[in-house]
Amino acid sequence: MICWFHFQTMPELRKDPVTGRWVIIATERIRRPSDYLVESSPPRGGTCPFCPGNEAETPPEIEAFGEEGRAPNGPGWWLRVVPNKYPALRVEGDLHRTGKGIYDLMNGVGAHEIIVETPVHDQELADLSDSSIEKVIWAYRDRMMDLKKDARLLYALVFKNHGDAAGASLEHPHSQIIATPIIPKRVQEELKGARQYYDYRERCIFCDMLQQELRERERLIFENASCVAVAPFASRFPFETWIMPKVHQADFLQIGKQSAIDLARAMKEVLVRLKRTLNDPPYNYMLHTMPLQENDPDAYHWHIEIIPKLTKVAGFEWGSGFYINPTPPEEAAAALREPV
Amino acid sequence: MICWFHFQTMPELRKDPVTGRWVIIATERIRRPSDYLVESSPPRGGTCPFCPGNEAETPPEIEAFGEEGRAPNGPGWWLRVVPNKYPALRVEGDLHRTGKGIYDLMNGVGAHEIIVETPVHDQELADLSDSSIEKVIWAYRDRMMDLKKDARLLYALVFKNHGDAAGASLEHPHSQIIATPIIPKRVQEELKGARQYYDYRERCIFCDMLQQELRERERLIFENASCVAVAPFASRFPFETWIMPKVHQADFLQIGKQSAIDLARAMKEVLVRLKRTLNDPPYNYMLHTMPLQENDPDAYHWHIEIIPKLTKVAGFEWGSGFYINPTPPEEAAAALREPV
Repeated sequence: MICWFHFQTMPELRKDPVTGRWVIIATERIRRPSDYLVESSPPRGGTCPFCPGNEAETPPEIEAFGEEGRAPNGPGWWLRVVPNKYPALRVEGDLHRTGKGIYDLMNGVGAHEIIVETPVHDQELADLSDSSIEKVIWAYRDRMMDLKKDARLLYALVFKNHGDAAGASLEHPHSQIIATPIIPKRVQEELKGARQYYDYRERCIFCDMLQQELRERERLIFENASCVAVAPFASRFPFETWIMPKVHQADFLQIGKQSAIDLARAMKEVLVRLKRTLNDPPYNYMLHTMPLQENDPDAYHWHIEIIPKLTKVAGFEWGSGFYINPTPPEEAAAALREPV
Repeated sequence: MICWFHFQTMPELRKDPVTGRWVIIATERIRRPSDYLVESSPPRGGTCPFCPGNEAETPPEIEAFGEEGRAPNGPGWWLRVVPNKYPALRVEGDLHRTGKGIYDLMNGVGAHEIIVETPVHDQELADLSDSSIEKVIWAYRDRMMDLKKDARLLYALVFKNHGDAAGASLEHPHSQIIATPIIPKRVQEELKGARQYYDYRERCIFCDMLQQELRERERLIFENASCVAVAPFASRFPFETWIMPKVHQADFLQIGKQSAIDLARAMKEVLVRLKRTLNDPPYNYMLHTMPLQENDPDAYHWHIEIIPKLTKVAGFEWGSGFYINPTPPEEAAAALREPV
């Protein structure tokens, strides 16, 4: 039986004809006009679908780390990956690229997964041990390796929303992965910029930035054997922090054991320092890495961008793509360098 | 006497070396780490610097519309334009483009002005008469015409932040203009996209969009003799609305008397409908028009983009430039089409 209702509610990818920007019209999570009249803050309390014992409230798990001999979709896990119950994009179906007059659109094919970072509801990522954060890193890598096998998926974006103001709709600590059938515009811009620099200088632009930051040290927040955390020179937001591997590596999927340990340590350090300095601010982070189906090891350099939500993005930023940042990154870095 | 303090606090424009994105490090409105520990919502109540009688609390006015014979910087005005007391950019000084290792920067030269739209503190733009809104439109045009005379200024962005969540730091209805010594990235993208379409088809892409919208009518919100309001096909945000002139016109500065009357009417209609349908939502709007020092009448088409703030921009949007919109524009337009 063909489920017409399913077809009708398939999310749609639409392209702005002028800028080439894509949007997802997310029919799985549709909000009608009257829905905006009620308070939009997520309900706190009640049953948390990410807590142990409530595994049946999420779709069946994709992957989990936990006690030996644990049965899937029951308790005993330390980290759990599940499909998003209200996905922005759906794995089923084909892309069906089509036009509608001047406009381009396609089916909202993709993946949308949740990484539940800890079984403990009120333990933030910043509160986890280094080895628990390392597990989160390996889960990111595992899931991206798996999504890479689906040739329709061109990019996998790992991100985390922490706090209501940063868009987290559930309190229980989790990250997300959305895999898209197109390489997002911002990613393309970054790849193109890095490629242009490489074509001119035959060096990775991120490696050159790192060298300068390690020499000047005024924007340095933390470093260990394989990772560096810096407040970028052109920070868009107060306390924006980038974590990068010291040794050149384009693709996060190539991360090695020691780098993962050092990355976990660096993430812990930065998140604890942000929490302490700014009283547990809402934040987003995004993993920037190579597109799933591309292999260009020279010009790009994976990294994590952490952006605390301390200021409001307003008309000027929306209209220009220019950001107004009232806190020089040198001052932010100095505050975050203070010993914990 | 050289004021060193002044030089030290000059805002700085910094460029991200990978993406070419510029940021303003706004030293005039500097916020130190400890400033983020207090509640960031703007104080309500107290003395409003934009209310009649308090004219001395703003820098001296640049322009005002008011009663005949009125003295500048006193009451009796209907609309008043003043420099921002805490400008993101400063008019004084030269650009002094320079490099710092891999990075590029320049002085934060530019203009930052406030258009106080009405003397009445609690009268929103949506509450103003058509003729008062028309005055706001003429003030935008006057100020842009004047800023155009300064050859250092390449773009003037007119925008409005309404409501705390949309970044308005003062309640009294006002718009802003920021003029920058570079053409912002988003503006360049839009100009480039429109130019590519024109080179291929020898038609304005916005005119083609308008034709399709007027034919299909499912995303149409309002039209009069010279203006159309539509929910764009690839709306980033729920209830995003664009207002465009029907007849091709690249540069807002060329607007004629009847178009300004019709634009005021269209803005009033859209703002009243948004207010009624969504219970006075916070919103931003941005005027998209030609760069100040360019004259390319064919490919571009000025318009106003209105974005209500109903959803939160989160990690996925920041990382990808992709937007997830839970309300199809066809549904938003249908709701906004309902008679007022």
